[in-house]
Amino acid sequence: MTLINTQIHLVSRPRGEPRADNFAKVSVPVPALEDGQILVRHQFLSLDPYMRGRMDEAKSYAEPHPLNTPMIGGTVGVVEESRHSAFQVGDSVVGMGGWQTYSVVDAQKPGLLRKADPRLQLSAHLGAVGMPGVTAWYGLTQIMQPQEGQTVCVSAASGAVGGALGQLAKVRGCRVVGIAGGPDKCAYVKDELGFDECIDYKACPDLKALRAALKAACPKGIDAHFENVGGLILDAVMLRANAFSRIAVCGMIAGYNGDALPMANPSLILVNRMRIEGFIVSEHMQLWPQALKELGGLVAQGQLKYRESIAQGLESAPEAFMGLLKGRNFGKQLVRID
Amino acid sequence: MTLINTQIHLVSRPRGEPRADNFAKVSVPVPALEDGQILVRHQFLSLDPYMRGRMDEAKSYAEPHPLNTPMIGGTVGVVEESRHSAFQVGDSVVGMGGWQTYSVVDAQKPGLLRKADPRLQLSAHLGAVGMPGVTAWYGLTQIMQPQEGQTVCVSAASGAVGGALGQLAKVRGCRVVGIAGGPDKCAYVKDELGFDECIDYKACPDLKALRAALKAACPKGIDAHFENVGGLILDAVMLRANAFSRIAVCGMIAGYNGDALPMANPSLILVNRMRIEGFIVSEHMQLWPQALKELGGLVAQGQLKYRESIAQGLESAPEAFMGLLKGRNFGKQLVRID
Repeated sequence: MTLINTQIHLVSRPRGEPRADNFAKVSVPVPALEDGQILVRHQFLSLDPYMRGRMDEAKSYAEPHPLNTPMIGGTVGVVEESRHSAFQVGDSVVGMGGWQTYSVVDAQKPGLLRKADPRLQLSAHLGAVGMPGVTAWYGLTQIMQPQEGQTVCVSAASGAVGGALGQLAKVRGCRVVGIAGGPDKCAYVKDELGFDECIDYKACPDLKALRAALKAACPKGIDAHFENVGGLILDAVMLRANAFSRIAVCGMIAGYNGDALPMANPSLILVNRMRIEGFIVSEHMQLWPQALKELGGLVAQGQLKYRESIAQGLESAPEAFMGLLKGRNFGKQLVRID
Repeated sequence: MTLINTQIHLVSRPRGEPRADNFAKVSVPVPALEDGQILVRHQFLSLDPYMRGRMDEAKSYAEPHPLNTPMIGGTVGVVEESRHSAFQVGDSVVGMGGWQTYSVVDAQKPGLLRKADPRLQLSAHLGAVGMPGVTAWYGLTQIMQPQEGQTVCVSAASGAVGGALGQLAKVRGCRVVGIAGGPDKCAYVKDELGFDECIDYKACPDLKALRAALKAACPKGIDAHFENVGGLILDAVMLRANAFSRIAVCGMIAGYNGDALPMANPSLILVNRMRIEGFIVSEHMQLWPQALKELGGLVAQGQLKYRESIAQGLESAPEAFMGLLKGRNFGKQLVRID
């Protein structure tokens, strides 16, 4: 019996917000394995903001995603068939399988597939103990480098990256202030994730209001900030930044759909002697083992909590992705494949 | 006979561009020295863009300059009277004497006064072998850290800081591209200072033109940039920045008079994984001896050239300062006091 692989292709490039007709469902037969290959049946697909950038034609840190191929994406699943001795049928594995129900992986190539940590839920490998968690870990430890007692701020605080960032900073003895959209997300960030404060940016209609909220939440100013959003939020944070503060730029999701997104007052970089640094976590693979070790340990001990928004079925991926860009998810956005 | 000290006081805070009536000339008697004090007769006063920030009431990296006192400023001069064994009458000294003809210095306090390097012209201690030179050295070696063969860019390239920056980068084997205003300054930067290229921003009416000029001058992109100006120039540089490029932010002179000065596209920080860092050279005094040693050596050997704009007489300081903010100077702006 030939297995059928269902895929979601990018078939046209979005102008502004992605729409359903930028995607198409395609069914293809799963090819026979060659020596050294593994067939993985996906259980969860990860949806992440970086994917929006790949949909554009424009030069970015990565090549544009080619049209008429399955969108890239992190996946967890089970080995269905193996022609490589390192993986057995039934193994739970983590990889970059893309928006499809199956993937064939060359197991000889290092780094494409890793085995899941048996202490953890499988889906955690796409969130707190996967790319989002390592992203938070890298930004905090390599760029923000906060000292105990310093004030750390993070936008999109209820998301997979932001939630991990704040909890990693709490472990290091920092005062942690989140920024999130809506009272439910803010309550979660404070009550469940243990941040010291969380600001509801939707309750702040303008820069002045957001600045006042940050002043109240950060009475000693902001020493280090992790930026997922950009725009008004970054402008307000810079107005509250301390001398020698550091900002790790992980995302500018406010501008991903093509809106102009200026920084209002870059002269604060000089006034506050700030360091602002952008990074892409996939360019620092040598640090992943160290990061995953800390993240996995914290999750296993219950010190790093996370929440998931799970869309049902591969076909729901485009709509779930559009919702992610609008902040409709609550925690790590996943798609359950089976 | 009582010596008279002529001073220029800041008597009101400029709104926008400084005007002559923000300053007033005041004459006071020179006080008798106490033990450990030195009386210095100033020969040159340094005018620098940072002074504009001090004239504002607003919070900045330093306290606002107090009204009705002589403006601060670097000075070189001659010891006229000494009650400290380390300085003799006739010694040439470098300090922060301010906008006045004499200063009384507590020579016990470390760092207030240093002796001039006899190999050099006295005025060089206010430029290439003084604060401007050390500013360039710090930005280049501590933030920009270019490798041999990389492309280094600097705005206000004909100024005291920019000129030193480019020549220090040439010594390190970099391709160096300056940005300056007008054909005369550009010719000086290329022909006298030895930059590889110099772009006349006045010949570039908009971002598109400046971007095209940078593309032509930097065929391999920009690896490191030293920013003195901000605004359109910074926007254009960021559009030409390479992956992992570094920008040292030393000044945002385009915004010193209160104009809004946004950064058009901060998402490039992420796309290009850039590091942007502001600094104030006076916060890194521990590195000055190392910097001054290299700078003094290069000037003495003729490898670090500079040019001076000299205004005559202390009374000319306000007008010369206003011209500096408009780029009317050509090279290091000084005031000859005697």
